[in-house]
Amino acid sequence: MCGIVGVVSNNPVNQLLYDALLLLQHRGQDAAGIATNHSSMFSMHKANGLVRDVFRTRNMRSLQGNSGIGHCRYPTAGSSSEEEAQPFYVNAPFGITLAHNGNLTNQEQLKEEMFRNDRRHINTDSDSEVLLNVLAHEIQEATVGLALDPDSVFKAVANVHRRVRGAYAVVAQIAGHGLLAFRDPFGIRPLCIGANETDKGTEYLVASESVALDGMGFRFIRDIAPGEAVFIDVEGKLHERQCADNPSLNPCAFEYVYLARPDSVIDGASVYATRLRMGEYLADKVRSQINVDDIDVVMPIPDSSRPAAIQLALKLGVEYREGFIKNRYIGRTFLMPGQAIRRKSVRQKLNAINAEFKGKNVLLVDDSIVRGTTSREIVQMAREAGANKVYFASAAPPVLFPNVYGIDMPTRDELIAYGRTNEEICREITADALVFQDVDSLKRAISDVNPALKNFEASCFDGVYVTGDVTPEYLDRLENARNNPKAAAEEDAARTRLNLNLATSE
Amino acid sequence: MCGIVGVVSNNPVNQLLYDALLLLQHRGQDAAGIATNHSSMFSMHKANGLVRDVFRTRNMRSLQGNSGIGHCRYPTAGSSSEEEAQPFYVNAPFGITLAHNGNLTNQEQLKEEMFRNDRRHINTDSDSEVLLNVLAHEIQEATVGLALDPDSVFKAVANVHRRVRGAYAVVAQIAGHGLLAFRDPFGIRPLCIGANETDKGTEYLVASESVALDGMGFRFIRDIAPGEAVFIDVEGKLHERQCADNPSLNPCAFEYVYLARPDSVIDGASVYATRLRMGEYLADKVRSQINVDDIDVVMPIPDSSRPAAIQLALKLGVEYREGFIKNRYIGRTFLMPGQAIRRKSVRQKLNAINAEFKGKNVLLVDDSIVRGTTSREIVQMAREAGANKVYFASAAPPVLFPNVYGIDMPTRDELIAYGRTNEEICREITADALVFQDVDSLKRAISDVNPALKNFEASCFDGVYVTGDVTPEYLDRLENARNNPKAAAEEDAARTRLNLNLATSE
Amino acid sequence: MCGIVGVVSNNPVNQLLYDALLLLQHRGQDAAGIATNHSSMFSMHKANGLVRDVFRTRNMRSLQGNSGIGHCRYPTAGSSSEEEAQPFYVNAPFGITLAHNGNLTNQEQLKEEMFRNDRRHINTDSDSEVLLNVLAHEIQEATVGLALDPDSVFKAVANVHRRVRGAYAVVAQIAGHGLLAFRDPFGIRPLCIGANETDKGTEYLVASESVALDGMGFRFIRDIAPGEAVFIDVEGKLHERQCADNPSLNPCAFEYVYLARPDSVIDGASVYATRLRMGEYLADKVRSQINVDDIDVVMPIPDSSRPAAIQLALKLGVEYREGFIKNRYIGRTFLMPGQAIRRKSVRQKLNAINAEFKGKNVLLVDDSIVRGTTSREIVQMAREAGANKVYFASAAPPVLFPNVYGIDMPTRDELIAYGRTNEEICREITADALVFQDVDSLKRAISDVNPALKNFEASCFDGVYVTGDVTPEYLDRLENARNNPKAAAEEDAARTRLNLNLATSE
Amino acid sequence: MCGIVGVVSNNPVNQLLYDALLLLQHRGQDAAGIATNHSSMFSMHKANGLVRDVFRTRNMRSLQGNSGIGHCRYPTAGSSSEEEAQPFYVNAPFGITLAHNGNLTNQEQLKEEMFRNDRRHINTDSDSEVLLNVLAHEIQEATVGLALDPDSVFKAVANVHRRVRGAYAVVAQIAGHGLLAFRDPFGIRPLCIGANETDKGTEYLVASESVALDGMGFRFIRDIAPGEAVFIDVEGKLHERQCADNPSLNPCAFEYVYLARPDSVIDGASVYATRLRMGEYLADKVRSQINVDDIDVVMPIPDSSRPAAIQLALKLGVEYREGFIKNRYIGRTFLMPGQAIRRKSVRQKLNAINAEFKGKNVLLVDDSIVRGTTSREIVQMAREAGANKVYFASAAPPVLFPNVYGIDMPTRDELIAYGRTNEEICREITADALVFQDVDSLKRAISDVNPALKNFEASCFDGVYVTGDVTPEYLDRLENARNNPKAAAEEDAARTRLNLNLATSE
Repeated sequence: MCGIVGVVSNNPVNQLLYDALLLLQHRGQDAAGIATNHSSMFSMHKANGLVRDVFRTRNMRSLQGNSGIGHCRYPTAGSSSEEEAQPFYVNAPFGITLAHNGNLTNQEQLKEEMFRNDRRHINTDSDSEVLLNVLAHEIQEATVGLALDPDSVFKAVANVHRRVRGAYAVVAQIAGHGLLAFRDPFGIRPLCIGANETDKGTEYLVASESVALDGMGFRFIRDIAPGEAVFIDVEGKLHERQCADNPSLNPCAFEYVYLARPDSVIDGASVYATRLRMGEYLADKVRSQINVDDIDVVMPIPDSSRPAAIQLALKLGVEYREGFIKNRYIGRTFLMPGQAIRRKSVRQKLNAINAEFKGKNVLLVDDSIVRGTTSREIVQMAREAGANKVYFASAAPPVLFPNVYGIDMPTRDELIAYGRTNEEICREITADALVFQDVDSLKRAISDVNPALKNFEASCFDGVYVTGDVTPEYLDRLENARNNPKAAAEEDAARTRLNLNLATSE
Repeated sequence: MCGIVGVVSNNPVNQLLYDALLLLQHRGQDAAGIATNHSSMFSMHKANGLVRDVFRTRNMRSLQGNSGIGHCRYPTAGSSSEEEAQPFYVNAPFGITLAHNGNLTNQEQLKEEMFRNDRRHINTDSDSEVLLNVLAHEIQEATVGLALDPDSVFKAVANVHRRVRGAYAVVAQIAGHGLLAFRDPFGIRPLCIGANETDKGTEYLVASESVALDGMGFRFIRDIAPGEAVFIDVEGKLHERQCADNPSLNPCAFEYVYLARPDSVIDGASVYATRLRMGEYLADKVRSQINVDDIDVVMPIPDSSRPAAIQLALKLGVEYREGFIKNRYIGRTFLMPGQAIRRKSVRQKLNAINAEFKGKNVLLVDDSIVRGTTSREIVQMAREAGANKVYFASAAPPVLFPNVYGIDMPTRDELIAYGRTNEEICREITADALVFQDVDSLKRAISDVNPALKNFEASCFDGVYVTGDVTPEYLDRLENARNNPKAAAEEDAARTRLNLNLATSE
Repeated sequence: MCGIVGVVSNNPVNQLLYDALLLLQHRGQDAAGIATNHSSMFSMHKANGLVRDVFRTRNMRSLQGNSGIGHCRYPTAGSSSEEEAQPFYVNAPFGITLAHNGNLTNQEQLKEEMFRNDRRHINTDSDSEVLLNVLAHEIQEATVGLALDPDSVFKAVANVHRRVRGAYAVVAQIAGHGLLAFRDPFGIRPLCIGANETDKGTEYLVASESVALDGMGFRFIRDIAPGEAVFIDVEGKLHERQCADNPSLNPCAFEYVYLARPDSVIDGASVYATRLRMGEYLADKVRSQINVDDIDVVMPIPDSSRPAAIQLALKLGVEYREGFIKNRYIGRTFLMPGQAIRRKSVRQKLNAINAEFKGKNVLLVDDSIVRGTTSREIVQMAREAGANKVYFASAAPPVLFPNVYGIDMPTRDELIAYGRTNEEICREITADALVFQDVDSLKRAISDVNPALKNFEASCFDGVYVTGDVTPEYLDRLENARNNPKAAAEEDAARTRLNLNLATSE
Repeated sequence: MCGIVGVVSNNPVNQLLYDALLLLQHRGQDAAGIATNHSSMFSMHKANGLVRDVFRTRNMRSLQGNSGIGHCRYPTAGSSSEEEAQPFYVNAPFGITLAHNGNLTNQEQLKEEMFRNDRRHINTDSDSEVLLNVLAHEIQEATVGLALDPDSVFKAVANVHRRVRGAYAVVAQIAGHGLLAFRDPFGIRPLCIGANETDKGTEYLVASESVALDGMGFRFIRDIAPGEAVFIDVEGKLHERQCADNPSLNPCAFEYVYLARPDSVIDGASVYATRLRMGEYLADKVRSQINVDDIDVVMPIPDSSRPAAIQLALKLGVEYREGFIKNRYIGRTFLMPGQAIRRKSVRQKLNAINAEFKGKNVLLVDDSIVRGTTSREIVQMAREAGANKVYFASAAPPVLFPNVYGIDMPTRDELIAYGRTNEEICREITADALVFQDVDSLKRAISDVNPALKNFEASCFDGVYVTGDVTPEYLDRLENARNNPKAAAEEDAARTRLNLNLATSE
C-alpha cells in the first residue's frame, strides 16, 4: 500500500506536495518522492525514508513548477531499493512521470510483451515502471504527431485497462500537457479529487485519501469512479471520462479496517463511521460468545481500533478505558560488533497502565489479527498488569489468504488463522476468549454507511479475488518469491536472459 | 523540560540508553545526547534533533562502556544551540559528566561566584554547565587526594543544594567511580530509580519517568526523594543519602496535566489516574456552569486530554467520542526564494470527522489553555464540521504566570488568561461556553491518587514560587530576555567582559 | 571538457570505474557518475562533486555488474545542475545509458526534430541527453524486433554521424547487449581502447586518455579512429567499424597544450613529448625577441608548463629552476552574514621562493594565457620576490576565439588577447617582455611527435572551425547565452513552449 | 606531525584559519579543528577528514570571534579517533584551548602525576590533552585570583618546560585574555610568527610554517626561539619571553628532507635551498660511486625530491627530466561483500612516460627511503618503461631508528635499512646501484643555508635523541605498542585502573 497525490495549481506546488505526503505518510513510510513540472521540464527527487527525512531544502528548491505528483511507499517484500522509489519517468512519448498505489498481477507478462513489441526496457522490479511503460506505449499508439488532446489520453487509458490486471490508482504527468489520474476498473484502491478556488482560477488536487484534501484546505469533489480517468490540462481545465468497459466498484475492505485514516471518506463511506459499525457488529458477536456481565472494561489497542472499541463498549454497556499507551517515537536497533542485541519487544511500543487492569476482566479490541505474535504479547502484558481474565476481539475476520492488490501480507504459513480453529488461535495468543468479526458483518459495516457499496475486495478474509485472474499457481509463485527472494530473483533474471538470448538469435 | 536517564549495568549500555531516550522523547525533541563510561574514559555524542536522527551507527559504536547517562532537550528560549546540548563534561576533579532537567534561578550569580572563587570558565549559556561546575567544585572541596567515597560525594551534593536555587533533577558520572543522581530539595522535577537482576548482578536505571523503566524491563524501586542523592559505584553497589536540610516534596503539577506520559507514575501518583480525577472534578465544574442535557457529546483534543475527557463523559453520563484525528507526521516549512509560504495551520495537525459534529452540541476537552490560539482554531473547526454549539473545558486552571522551573512558557502578554475574565477568554476563543478547572481541584485530583502529596509546584496557575527566591524583578528580567534575546545576550556579555576587565586590572 | 570511461570485464567493475575516473579527474571536477549493467539491469549513481565525494559505500554496493560506464564533468556555463550529471538513461529501445565528452553545435535543432518526429522529450539542457536520444532513435530505426547485431548498432552510429554536428567522444551501454564507444568523424575529442587478459578471457577498457589504461593495468591497443565505433558484446567479443562517410583526424590542440595529462598518448602523440617540442619552438621564438644572455633563469608555472619549460631552458642553455610552489589543497570561501569576504588570490594557490628570484632576470613559462589576470598576479609575485626583470612566455599562441567543441572558454570580451597587440597584452600583465608561441609552431610541435597528424582543431587560436557549420551568428548567440544565462534560458523555454503550443493546436 | 596555526585579529578569523589550515594541510590530512574566541566564549569544531570536508557552512557560522587556533592532524599509530582531534578544551582555570605539533615522551608519567596531584582526568590517549592539562595546572599555580598578566603566563610556560619532555610547538587560547604560543626548549618542531597591519591595528598570525603567513598576506617576523613563548593579549599587544633554562636549537632534519613545504623558511633556512644543497652533496656521493658518463638522465620522484634532483642533475651535468607523473586525485578502496579487492598499487599514484626511459640509464632521486616497498615498485616501473639501467639515489641517509618527536615512523623491523648493508638494500629494491646521502652531508646541507644552525634532531638517521631521556626500553615499549595496539591499550587501561583502585583504597 502506498499514498499518491497530484496537483495542478497556479502557484509553486513543492511545499503543498510535501505537506500532502505528510498527511498520507501513514500509507507508507519506506520511501518518498515528488516530481514537478515547469515549462515542460520535470524535476524529481525520491529516496528511501520518511517524507521529513527525504526532502531537504536543496531538494525542495529544485522541485520547481505549478504542478506535480508525489508518492510515499509502503515497504513490500522484494521492492525496497532506492531505485524503486516512485515516481518513475519515461521520456517518450512527450515525457511522462507516474506514481501508483496497488499491484499488477500480470506484470511479468506485460514486461515481456512490452519488450517484444516495443523494445521498452524495464530497469527495476517495480510494477510501477511496467505500468508507466504500458501507459506510454498506449499514448504513443493513440496519438499522431504532437497533438495530444484529452480524447487521445482517455483512449490510451482505456487500452491500459484492457491490458493491465490487478489494482491500481494512478497519478501521472505528461510534460507540457497536464495531469492524468485514473483508477482500475474494479475500483479496488481509493482515489479522490478536490478543488480550491483562488484569485487566479481553480486548483485541483488528486489524492489517495480525502484527508489530504482536508488538510490542504481543498474542497472534496468526489471519488474517482472505477475505470474512470480525469485529466487536468495545463490551462487548469478538468476533463473526465469513463474508460473501462465494465467497471464495478469493489473497494478494499482492509482500507476501512486498518489502512486508511479514520477521518478519510472513501467511496462515500466515512472510515470512522464504518469502524463504529464494526464495533457494533462485533458487540453482537461478543454478546453471543461471552457473558457480558463478566466483562469489566473494554480497551482498544491504540490507535486504529479506538472507534470500534468505543462503540463496542457503548453497545455492550461496559465501561471504555484506555489501558495501553502507545510510544510515538521509534528508533533503530544497532548491530554492535561483539555485543548482544537487546531484543525490542512490544513493550517498547506499548505500555500498560496497571491500575486499569488490576483484578479486572478486560476485553481487548484490535482492528485485526495477522501473525498473532503481537496479540500474544499484549495478552501477556495485560496479565502482568494484573488482569483477571483477558478476552480478545478482532474488528476484522481472521486473515486467511494472501493479498495480491498492493497490501503486503505474510505468506499463509505465517498467518495465525491459517489452518487453525478459533479455539486453537485463542490458545496460541493465550487469551481467555477470542471473538472475530464475521466476513458478512464486516461488509455490512461498510454498506451500512454507504448503501451504494455492495461489493468489496476482501480476499484476505474470503479468498475471493475480484479480478478473476488470480490462480492458485500464481499465489504459490508469489509466496515462493516471498520466502526465497534470492532464488526468485535469479529465476526471473534467468528467464529474462533467456528471452534476450532468444531474441538476439532470431 | 527535558528527559534524563542514567544506567549502571554489566553490559554495554549504548542501545539501552538510546531506547530509554526514545521512551522519554516526549519530554524534549530539540536535542539529544549520551555519555558513556568505560575504563574511566568517557565517550560522548550529542547534537540537535530527535534521538533517531542524532545517533548514527558510527556514534553508537563509539559509545562504549557499561554505564552512562542520556538527555533529551526541550526547546527553550535562548538555549537551543548544538553546543548547549547535554550532557556536559568537566575534567577536574576526576572527570565528571552531567545532564539535568530543570532550571536554576540563581545561575548568573553562581557563574560569577564560580569564576571569582574557582576561575572556572562557563562556555555556554546553559545552566547545566553551571550546575556541573558547582558540583565539580564541591566534589573538589569535599575530597582529599584521590580517595572518593560515597560520603564525600553526598557531602558535595549537600553543598550543591545549599548554593543552587531552582528546580533540578540530575544524573552525573564520576569517571572510574560511579553514577550519581539527585533531585532538588523541593522535589519539583521528577526522578525515579529501578533495578534489573541479571546473571552478573543488579543493573540500576535512573530516569525522569517510570515509563522508561517499564519499557526497558526494569523493576520500579521508588522515586528519588526531594534533596536525596543516590550513588551507584563501579562495583554496582547502590548508596543512598538525604542531602538536603529541609526537604519538602512539591512536584510540578504541570507534569500531571500535560508533560508526563500517562503511563508514568510520579511521586506515587499514576499520571493517568490523576487525569481521570481531573476529569471528574472538571465534570462537577461543568455541571455547575452548563446544562448537561444540552451536551450531546464529549470529545478530547488528542492525545493528552483523553483520560480526563473519558472520565468527564462517564461522570456526566454523556457519550464519549473522538471527533478529532491527530496527524502523527510533522514536517518543515521551507523558505523558497521568491515564493509565498503556505501557512501551516492547526488543520494539518488535527482533522475533524464531520459526522461526529453535524448538528450536535459538543463539549471539547483540552488539558490546558496557554496562548489560546490553537483553542480558537479548534472551536472554528468544530463549527465548520457542523457543530451546533461548541463548549470548551480545560482540565487545568488558567495559565497566568511564567514558569521558572524548567517549563518553557510564553511571557505574560502572550498568555490568553492574563488580564482577562473567563467571559473574555471564552469570547476570544469563540466558544459558546468555557470551563476551567479550579486550582484546588487540580491539586486535589493529584492528592486523591496519592494522599501523601500535599504541596505542589503550580506557580503558572497560582503564582506561588515554592523556592521562595523568585522576585517580580527576576520575572521581569526573564520576560525581557525572552522578548529581546539579542539585547539580553549583549547585556550579559557586557557584564561578563566588565568582570574580566576588572579582574585583570586588579 | 569531461572524462569518460567504459569497461566490459569478467568481474565486478565498480571499483575499477571509480579508480579510472580518479585517473581522469583532471578532465572534470564538477560532477561524476557511474552506470553499471548486470543481468540486463542498469544501476546508476551520479551527483555534483569530486569522484571521492560522490561515491559512498552504499552507492558502490548498488553499482553491481561486470560492465559499466563512467563520467566526470567539467563545469561549463549553463550546465551545472545535478540533474545534468552524466551518464543519462533512456529506456527504449532496449534500455541505453550514455556519457560523452564534447559539445554538439546543432543541439537545439536536434531537440526540436526529435520531438517533432519521435516525440522524445528532453528533460534537461544537457546535449548528452540529446545525443543519447538521437542514438536511441537511430538504433530503433536500424533494428527490427529484438534482434540487435553489431551491424545494426554500427548502422545507427552512422546515422548519428549524419545528424549530429560538433565534437563527441561517446561511451554507451545497451542493456543486455554490450558496450558501444564512438568518436565524431572529425576526431576532435580523444578516445582510446585497451585490453587486459585474465583467466576468464579478455577485459576491454575504453577511456578518454591512455593514462586510465596504464593506471588500471590495461594494455593500450589503439586510439578509436575518427568516425569509428567499437562494440563489445556481452560475450566480451570486440567488433569494430568505420561509421563515417568522410572521416578526418583533427585532434584538439588544447588537449596537448593543457587539458590532457602529460603521461597520456593521444592519437599517437605523447602529450609529454609534444610539450617538450612546444618548449623547443618557443625557445626559438624567445631567442628572436629577447637577448638570451639577459635571462638568468627559466621557471615553469606548475604543473602543466613544466615539460615545455624544462626543454626551453635546455635549448636556451639557461638554468632551469622551480621558483613557484603550488598549493595542492583547495577549499571554499564561505559567505558569512555581516562579515566581509577575505579575497582569495593567486597567492593561496601559488607561492614564490624568494631566493630564486632575488636580483635575477627570470623567464616565466606558462602553458597558455586566457584571461591574463592570473598572469599579471604571477608577474607581480615575481617582482615582489625580488626579480629584476620578469619575462613571460606562453607555450600556446594567444587565445582569440571561443571554443564550441566542449572546452569552456570565456567570451571574447574577457580574452586578454582579443583586440590587443602583443605589446598591449605585455603591458596588461606588467611583464618586461612577452613571447607567444606561433600557431604553426604549436601544430608542428604535435606533428613532429606523430607525423601522421596533419590537421588540428585549434579554433581558439586560429578561428577555423573544422566542422564547417559554425557561423558568426552561432558564436554571437553562444556568447550572449554565457553573458546572460537567465535571458537565454527564458528565450529557450519560450521557444519550446511555442513549439509545444503549435503542436497541440495542429 | 601536524600543522598548527593561531591568530589574533580585528576581524572575524574563521575563514582566515580555514585558509591557513589549507596551506598547512600537507602536514596532516587525518583530522582538522578550529577553536575561536569571542566575548570570552569559545566555539569549536573538529572532526576526522580533510579541512575541506570537516568544515561546512553551519560549522563556520558558529566559529565566531576575532581570535582563534587551528590544527590539522597527521595520522599516527594509536591516535586516530575523532575524539582525539585537536584543539582540546579545559575549563579551569579561565578556560583554555590548545593544539600542538610534536610528541611528549613522558606522557604516561605526567598523566599519573596530574591525576595524583591535581585530580585532572585525561579522557583520551592524546598527549595534547595531557599537555593542555599541565599548562592549565601551571597557570593555576602561577596566578592568584582573576588577575592574569603576561608574567604569570610565562611563568606557567617555564614550569611546563620543566615538567614536559619531548617535542612540542603549541598554540593556546586563554578565554578573554589572549593567544599563547610556545616551542619546546630544544626547538625541535617549527613555529613562526608574522604580522599584518590593518586600519584597526596589527594582526598576528602564528603558524607551523612560514608558507601560511605568505599565503595569508602576513609579513614574516621571525621564528619562535626554542623555549620561547609569545603572548598576544586581547588588546592585540605582543609579549615575548624566553621561558627555558638552557634552550638550544635542534630543528628536525626531516622537516627539510620531506615534511615541510619547499617554499617555507624554517629557523632561518629556506627548505627549498636546503634541498638544493642536498642535491649537491648527493651529486658528490653519486660521482664517487657511479660512473657519471653512464647516466643518461636524472629524474625526481615527484613532488618532494624535485629541487634535490634538479640541482643534482646540474651538478653532474646530466640532463634533468620528469619521467614520472603523479596522480593528484586519491580515492578509497571499498570493501564489497563477496567481491575481490582490486589491489591499489604505486601505478595509480605514479605513471611513467615511456619515451623518457626507453633504452636509457636513469638515475632516480627520492627524498628518502623508509620501508623501501615503494622504491622497489618504482624501479620496476622504470624497467617496464624500457630503462636500460636504473640507479637510485636518496637525498636523505638511510632511516634506521624510530622517531619519538612526532613523526609517525614504522617499527625498526619494517625499515628496509635496518640491519641491511647498502648492497642488500640495493638488491631489495632491485636497483642497479643505490646511493644514500651521508648524515653529515645532510646536516651540512642545512647549515650551509643558515650557518647559525649547528645541531639537528636527526634521530631516525643517527640514533641520537637530543632530549636525553629516550632509553632503549622506551623505544621497545613504543614499538611494542605499534605492533600490538590492542594489547598495549589494555595494558595501559589496566595500569590506569590499578592506579585508580589504589587511589580509592588509600
